[in-house]
Amino acid sequence: MNLSRKPVQINEVIERIWEHHNPGMTEIVAIEDNTDRFLGEDIIAKTDVPAFDKSPYDGFALRAEDTAWASSENRIEFEVIDKIGAGSVSHKRIGGHQAVRIMTGAPIPSGCDTVIMLELVKEIERDGKNFIQITRKLKKGDNISFRGEDIKSGTLLVRKGTKINPGIQSLLATFGYKKLAVMRKPKIGVLATGDELLNVEEPLVPGKIRNSNSYMIVEQIKRSGAKAIHYGKIPDTFTATYDALHKAIAEVDMMITIGGVSVGDYDYMPKVYEALGADILCNKIAMRPGSVTTIASLDGKLLYGLSGNPSACYVGFELFARPIIRHSLGSNKPFLKKVKAILDVDFPKANPFTRFVRSKLFTGGTQLFVAPIGMDKSNIIFSLAYANCLMVLPGGTRGYKKGMEVEVLLLEDHEGSDLF
Amino acid sequence: MNLSRKPVQINEVIERIWEHHNPGMTEIVAIEDNTDRFLGEDIIAKTDVPAFDKSPYDGFALRAEDTAWASSENRIEFEVIDKIGAGSVSHKRIGGHQAVRIMTGAPIPSGCDTVIMLELVKEIERDGKNFIQITRKLKKGDNISFRGEDIKSGTLLVRKGTKINPGIQSLLATFGYKKLAVMRKPKIGVLATGDELLNVEEPLVPGKIRNSNSYMIVEQIKRSGAKAIHYGKIPDTFTATYDALHKAIAEVDMMITIGGVSVGDYDYMPKVYEALGADILCNKIAMRPGSVTTIASLDGKLLYGLSGNPSACYVGFELFARPIIRHSLGSNKPFLKKVKAILDVDFPKANPFTRFVRSKLFTGGTQLFVAPIGMDKSNIIFSLAYANCLMVLPGGTRGYKKGMEVEVLLLEDHEGSDLF
Repeated sequence: MNLSRKPVQINEVIERIWEHHNPGMTEIVAIEDNTDRFLGEDIIAKTDVPAFDKSPYDGFALRAEDTAWASSENRIEFEVIDKIGAGSVSHKRIGGHQAVRIMTGAPIPSGCDTVIMLELVKEIERDGKNFIQITRKLKKGDNISFRGEDIKSGTLLVRKGTKINPGIQSLLATFGYKKLAVMRKPKIGVLATGDELLNVEEPLVPGKIRNSNSYMIVEQIKRSGAKAIHYGKIPDTFTATYDALHKAIAEVDMMITIGGVSVGDYDYMPKVYEALGADILCNKIAMRPGSVTTIASLDGKLLYGLSGNPSACYVGFELFARPIIRHSLGSNKPFLKKVKAILDVDFPKANPFTRFVRSKLFTGGTQLFVAPIGMDKSNIIFSLAYANCLMVLPGGTRGYKKGMEVEVLLLEDHEGSDLF
Repeated sequence: MNLSRKPVQINEVIERIWEHHNPGMTEIVAIEDNTDRFLGEDIIAKTDVPAFDKSPYDGFALRAEDTAWASSENRIEFEVIDKIGAGSVSHKRIGGHQAVRIMTGAPIPSGCDTVIMLELVKEIERDGKNFIQITRKLKKGDNISFRGEDIKSGTLLVRKGTKINPGIQSLLATFGYKKLAVMRKPKIGVLATGDELLNVEEPLVPGKIRNSNSYMIVEQIKRSGAKAIHYGKIPDTFTATYDALHKAIAEVDMMITIGGVSVGDYDYMPKVYEALGADILCNKIAMRPGSVTTIASLDGKLLYGLSGNPSACYVGFELFARPIIRHSLGSNKPFLKKVKAILDVDFPKANPFTRFVRSKLFTGGTQLFVAPIGMDKSNIIFSLAYANCLMVLPGGTRGYKKGMEVEVLLLEDHEGSDLF
């Protein structure tokens, strides 16, 4: 195995990991338990909508032909022979100059071919019978919602892999999807390495910091739609790292470790991957932050050795782990959505490598603008709390000027992109 | 009580309901259980970050003054007297021309004032001792991450009411927020009325439809950050409606009913509100869809009588219920975020009232564009599955042309707006 560290281009990294993607599996859940899940099957209209001709208004159903001579000078009278609310069906047979009082959503009675709104008639009671008077001509089909006019039975409504939202939930209920297939959440293990790490509840002591990256990555995993399994932290020794990884990998679909990937004396991750028999896909990437990101595969599972630097860790997950997760959640747009925006400030830093700058996308008029959040020192985690995108600044430049057009990757989008 | 139906302007509706808003309560949860919650307290930096001067690289810590005469012609040699990884502290006292091998994140040993990167030195072993040779002059403070340079202790980092994201979770872990206050999720009851409604698992029969609006509103409630309590469906009778509402209102913070608000013979909702002793804030709103939306207050709780029309129901919730929920989740930007976009198609429909059109916001270059999804027949639920915004078309116009600038309300945003 070649552990020399030759920077691999980002697109090449994507290609190498994509050979190890997993199409994902489905499971059946009840409609009440769908929240934030991804469809595991296409939603198909199982009936016409409406399923029957119905009234879109409260009013009276009648025959248009009987209104042919109606005008404000020539009121035409109809006998009201029945009354139906939504959910009821009239079993009366309608004749000439007869009408059925009908409420919104109720089926058009047989023989009727138009509806006049309640507000447009005069109601009269005479001899214990109800009548209405009409002063306008109606056309056949007026004010009827026809069977199938919204959706025809058999129509493909929403594709597998789409995140369920309120509108989709409504469709599922409409077509009786009491239970449906959703994508099984892949299980992603998270393990932090480092003698310097304290648990979140421990007090600070000299030289130590709390393990914050694991909590961040766990949230990123949840945001991506997967299930996170938090394996805590282990000390910087080969044996501890090997043992913990060996055990964890067996339990998960993808394994993320944080730290131990640099060239320092205690950076065991590449050696542990080697000892586990994993195939190292890259151990250096031509980007900032995150250049020391190491990615390997073992028994069809991807192993991500992310940097312990918070920004590098964050970016490494979003660029290389999230698309694999989204793909296994059925998406055919697994990559972060990319849009163009106008740089709102100068970014004078020279850029030998492609840089991913945590940034804020905002609007001015109908234009999209982007600005970095805070300074881009890569150990500042503060700015990650406010970032809604990563600005992509291709390498080989002396910096960028306010007003230039740049690309940004959206962090909180669920639509995605089919291209990296 | 005045049950006459005079359309109230949207801004006036907001003002009336805002008198009944509730600031919300907090509860304590563990950091592991924060996902999708809203901060119930400000996050404050409890220590400096870094908490100590530390090395940002793997290298050697030494005294800058000892490198004053170093050059490629004049190598200067240092004895390496200690070696520390992240998490360790060197207890050696450094003297002239001595150095400590130091890994990324480890604290700068006392006496040292600069760090040289591993790659820039030549390492030598002689007589069982380790030495390095340096060929460049270093400045005091070079390659040191100084205590507090990222964040000073006491800094306000993130305000109460912000939705927790991966970056925020990282801050919480960094500062030892093992448990923290989050906003309690308000409990929102959902009840559908209508004889025409079937449960999702029931087969269709003539004249009936499945109760889909409840499932949609439950998802909208969850998306807003609140907890939904689904009371199912009841028949269109005054008694059933009164009894169900009376019971449910006692158990929730806000009550949403669907249907029964029109002027039809079976639309009991306004009368039930009256019988319950509620104060009716509006029973008609100058907007489309959703004009028959009825809103009332009872014992400090808001009662929303939304239309049974899916689009009207959806829009009524987003415009009038969501801001109240977001406010009770601590947000000072509780309203839907509004941005401007260029209308991408003609919208020729005359517009007597302000219209909220379910639409798709998308980008072209650095510009935002918007287009309605499907035709805007208000009983089409299909389009709600694909809408990511509501286009706002103010009333009193003869329609809108492609290329005009319009306002849109974002449906999937979590930042919000402080203005309606």
